[in-house]
Amino acid sequence: MATLLLVFLVSACNQQSGGDKAGALGSGDAASKVYVAPGEYDEFYAFLSGGFSGQMSVYGLPSGRLLKIIPVFAQDAEKGWGYNEETKPMLNTSYGFVPWDDAHHPELSQTNGVPDGRWVFINGNNTPRIARIDLTTFETTDIIEIPNSGGNHSSPFTTENTEYVVAGTRFSVPFPQKDVAISSYKENFKGALSFIKVEEEGLDIAFQILVPGYDYDLAHSGKGKSHGWTFFTTYNTEESHTLKEVNASQNDKDFIAAVNWKKAEEYLSQGKAKDFPAEYLVNRYDESTHTATSTKHETVKVLIPSECPGLIYYLPTPKSPHGVDVDPTGEYIVGNGKLSADLTIHSFDKMMAAIESQSFDDEIDGIPVLKFEDVLAGTVQSGGLGPLHTEFDANGNAYTTFFISSEVVKWKVGTWEVLDRAPCYYSVGHLMIPGGDSKKPWGKYLVAMNKITKDRYLPTGPEMNHSAQLFDISGDKMQLILDFPTVGEPHYAQGIAADVVMQNSKKIYPLNENNHAHAIKNESEVKIVREGDVVRIYMTSIRSHFAPDNIEGIKVGDKVYIHLTNLEQDWDTPHGLSVLGARNAELLVMPGQTETLYWEPQRPGVYPFYCTDFCSALHQEMQGYIRVSAKGSNTELKWSVGED
Amino acid sequence: MATLLLVFLVSACNQQSGGDKAGALGSGDAASKVYVAPGEYDEFYAFLSGGFSGQMSVYGLPSGRLLKIIPVFAQDAEKGWGYNEETKPMLNTSYGFVPWDDAHHPELSQTNGVPDGRWVFINGNNTPRIARIDLTTFETTDIIEIPNSGGNHSSPFTTENTEYVVAGTRFSVPFPQKDVAISSYKENFKGALSFIKVEEEGLDIAFQILVPGYDYDLAHSGKGKSHGWTFFTTYNTEESHTLKEVNASQNDKDFIAAVNWKKAEEYLSQGKAKDFPAEYLVNRYDESTHTATSTKHETVKVLIPSECPGLIYYLPTPKSPHGVDVDPTGEYIVGNGKLSADLTIHSFDKMMAAIESQSFDDEIDGIPVLKFEDVLAGTVQSGGLGPLHTEFDANGNAYTTFFISSEVVKWKVGTWEVLDRAPCYYSVGHLMIPGGDSKKPWGKYLVAMNKITKDRYLPTGPEMNHSAQLFDISGDKMQLILDFPTVGEPHYAQGIAADVVMQNSKKIYPLNENNHAHAIKNESEVKIVREGDVVRIYMTSIRSHFAPDNIEGIKVGDKVYIHLTNLEQDWDTPHGLSVLGARNAELLVMPGQTETLYWEPQRPGVYPFYCTDFCSALHQEMQGYIRVSAKGSNTELKWSVGED
Repeated sequence: MATLLLVFLVSACNQQSGGDKAGALGSGDAASKVYVAPGEYDEFYAFLSGGFSGQMSVYGLPSGRLLKIIPVFAQDAEKGWGYNEETKPMLNTSYGFVPWDDAHHPELSQTNGVPDGRWVFINGNNTPRIARIDLTTFETTDIIEIPNSGGNHSSPFTTENTEYVVAGTRFSVPFPQKDVAISSYKENFKGALSFIKVEEEGLDIAFQILVPGYDYDLAHSGKGKSHGWTFFTTYNTEESHTLKEVNASQNDKDFIAAVNWKKAEEYLSQGKAKDFPAEYLVNRYDESTHTATSTKHETVKVLIPSECPGLIYYLPTPKSPHGVDVDPTGEYIVGNGKLSADLTIHSFDKMMAAIESQSFDDEIDGIPVLKFEDVLAGTVQSGGLGPLHTEFDANGNAYTTFFISSEVVKWKVGTWEVLDRAPCYYSVGHLMIPGGDSKKPWGKYLVAMNKITKDRYLPTGPEMNHSAQLFDISGDKMQLILDFPTVGEPHYAQGIAADVVMQNSKKIYPLNENNHAHAIKNESEVKIVREGDVVRIYMTSIRSHFAPDNIEGIKVGDKVYIHLTNLEQDWDTPHGLSVLGARNAELLVMPGQTETLYWEPQRPGVYPFYCTDFCSALHQEMQGYIRVSAKGSNTELKWSVGED
Repeated sequence: MATLLLVFLVSACNQQSGGDKAGALGSGDAASKVYVAPGEYDEFYAFLSGGFSGQMSVYGLPSGRLLKIIPVFAQDAEKGWGYNEETKPMLNTSYGFVPWDDAHHPELSQTNGVPDGRWVFINGNNTPRIARIDLTTFETTDIIEIPNSGGNHSSPFTTENTEYVVAGTRFSVPFPQKDVAISSYKENFKGALSFIKVEEEGLDIAFQILVPGYDYDLAHSGKGKSHGWTFFTTYNTEESHTLKEVNASQNDKDFIAAVNWKKAEEYLSQGKAKDFPAEYLVNRYDESTHTATSTKHETVKVLIPSECPGLIYYLPTPKSPHGVDVDPTGEYIVGNGKLSADLTIHSFDKMMAAIESQSFDDEIDGIPVLKFEDVLAGTVQSGGLGPLHTEFDANGNAYTTFFISSEVVKWKVGTWEVLDRAPCYYSVGHLMIPGGDSKKPWGKYLVAMNKITKDRYLPTGPEMNHSAQLFDISGDKMQLILDFPTVGEPHYAQGIAADVVMQNSKKIYPLNENNHAHAIKNESEVKIVREGDVVRIYMTSIRSHFAPDNIEGIKVGDKVYIHLTNLEQDWDTPHGLSVLGARNAELLVMPGQTETLYWEPQRPGVYPFYCTDFCSALHQEMQGYIRVSAKGSNTELKWSVGED
């Protein structure tokens, strides 16, 4: 039976690969809807996850143009991210320096349930982490590691006022880790649901909840009436540890876990949490010092459901539910059962009534299981197959993606009536409507993020970019208006009206606010300091020269730190720096910023360095030389600019 | 005087930053010209350099959509490039593993002077290298290091039948390298012009020419009548080594170097080349073994102009010429003097006549200097400032970018008459017309690649993507039809009609042609082999499981190689692989390919691994566990899939 299902799923996917292009609209109507004329601005920012790129991509809508790739979890040689001395600590973990992760779900900060444009968060799956990006600078400022977790997938979904972002283990692991047989899974493997406190000055883990060893897949928090609750989907309630494609697809229903985090706060303040050993790192980039630091933590506070009544409940939900999405009113909790045809919608009011009446089916490790029929609000008879995710517009409609039948289905919240359906090319995963998971969706556009690309664009060999499709949803019927390729694998995205973000965007870093330990503010302060084999070069850049640009007295075996301060204070005047043969990436230094290139010279000679970012008509001339002498030589340390 | 010039140049740039948006065309006409409807294909591939990203970007024209980023000189965690064992050798140099470079000029291979769609080359500036990308797979297959060079800028421009690609040092260095005072520049620093032989099976340096210590900036080869010659621009004929923005801008004229490479071949066959010591690496990725290897070379053949009459001539050209561009007929050699207002066009026929008549002005290090008036074909009185680059259409017109006056100027080849001008936003560098540097330009579109972005798109903090502008050049007047942001810094680009490339694009790697040393072709061949502390896991992937997916007996301190073969043979079915805590990037394995993840387990426990590229409806279930025991423990080595 499971095998049959597999064959069906795979062949359903394949059949679409020859899909016709009837969805294409060659009309000037669609063209004019997506066209943003030269010099004009897009209406919305869209933040798309990079998936296996580890980064986040910023697109403009409706044009589908890629505005920026923000480095987050992966080294990015282009910007020196994870290569220069200042940002290396951002990629530290309890396992050491980890240059990559798998980034899935961008999540905008909210105030009163509405995206406020301050920050965007994103999770790292593989070595569980959450990052925060500051939307005044579009730079990653925080990365926190999540202990006791594997595959941090159900993350970082925020609460209504960004009190918390959350994390849930997709793959349960021994909690805390230990060397046990994999076959002892049911005995030794547990899940963790984590709540990370969000403050201006940093992130920290407020608490974790110890839960059964299921796979916690996605999450969303309540809003309005359901503010104070967060919902997590589960699959693999079978607690299988091998060939999960078969073994984790047996149960008719899995669960949505409903966590009362306000209740958790009460238990915390009552001292009900236990300290568990847990190594994890908290990394923070300080905009004042332009430098990141890593802080190691050794314990985490854990709440145990059996000791904390009312903390968490399970809502039975067919079938391997993937996304869990809460409508703008906070009343409806949509379970997207990925191996079913129908959508299951739970009612928050009914859930509260069932809890009130203590009407439970079962209890698992201290977690009451509510009765399916007690909490069910309705079912969408979709006619599709494989629902994954649902978002909402401002008019009481919901839009659900169906992976297997490869379509978006529009339906009415409350009546569960199907209103429209549109095919996707091919195999849609997440979708995004600007504000579509908030209390006040902007609506207007819908982006379908598709998992398979095949013939949508000119071929690029065996590997192709993934593909997004933009729909106009302002009318009764969805209209496909644009296909655009995406960087990495866009799992989820968030959209926000441009004016909310752009009004706060910074153009430069004020030089007088630069508190970098090795900054200099003026060319007159240029110097080189040697302490043993450590050499620190304090260098400046301004159009179109470095100071110093002639350097002698460096020796093979030296550990050379080039601290470059970009003295520019104009918009869009970065300078780059690279040195021939350096086993490192370049620096790319914004106006007013200081960054450091570490270099170990390999062999004697004279090595050019130059500006890597075209800065003026005399950019090609922005270049200098460093003389490297043999170890132990007597070449005098000296530096100059403009001297013959 | 030089200082005044600087002030002018900088302020000219800045004045444009408030530039109005009069260039914007909101018309449906422009919208429909750039709109590629969902399911339709772009007309042209455009290959844009990534500049300081080190990579190459593939865009579709006229849509401006980013189809793929091809990793070349920089590590790319998204694809595991430079992280997996197979591709690490590609980034080896004589200085060790260098994870980044500055990639400037894509160059398509040509047959009979026309882009043939086989390969695209690109130079690395910083640690001088040239790469080749195979356009059947869109993968980098060759990277060769260029010795005796600094800032490999005038590269990799091809000859008419891709006999060679070339390299010229932008920053002269001691040749061969030695520890000398920078102030001894004029005595000790020399330039190298390198010709790299292109064969199906690899690249190698055929010869270098030892030239005066100028800065060799750009190049293009002759075509038609001038086939057999390659032209290089120079600046810094002053041989300054500090504050070049002033000191390298003194001379009224610098040179275009004209190299007769057919003559060089004669001298080579006569044994006139000298062997110079030169450490350089040649790296090659073999598509059959899916594995790269590095080969070290220790000498290079050098031709010395004073010993090789007729090999090279200098053509005086005002003023710090940047681009050198040869028209489709091969007769006209355009010198874009970046500190001048006018364009200087030399005549190939006149040059040959002057050489024939031995009519020289001077001789420098054995290189005859032709008389300016003897070779001059004409001057374009442009009315612009700061010409950088020229390309051509199919109708006898040329298009030149002007950095300082920030515009493209269209002029008539032969009459030198200015026909049209269009402003760019802001500060245009290179331009690209599909086939525009070949014997048969496709024309139709022109892409201006601009160095400064400022307000062209929604702001993204201090750092913004660079910006390209697409013009329709099919009419008498250029029409700006699209602004699109670009990844990294697009210096140059090449365009080619889509059908030339797409007909050869591969969809998969046939499994039966996989000759990787650690490939397995079937799940039944799965195994784990321990030799001391080296553990090799032979693993397979197919929708939607790994085999094995339960692994025990790995110990802290082991050196674990996971050799993953993707058994899929369908189009667009990659699988990814990552392991919690691995100090490495993921694998992203195309159908039929084998890649290797190296992992040193840090601490005991049970670690999930999973597929990072959404592959089917049961992708979330494509996961396994590896048990790690303490060093010295007795946990038995075992593996399985589907066993309880």
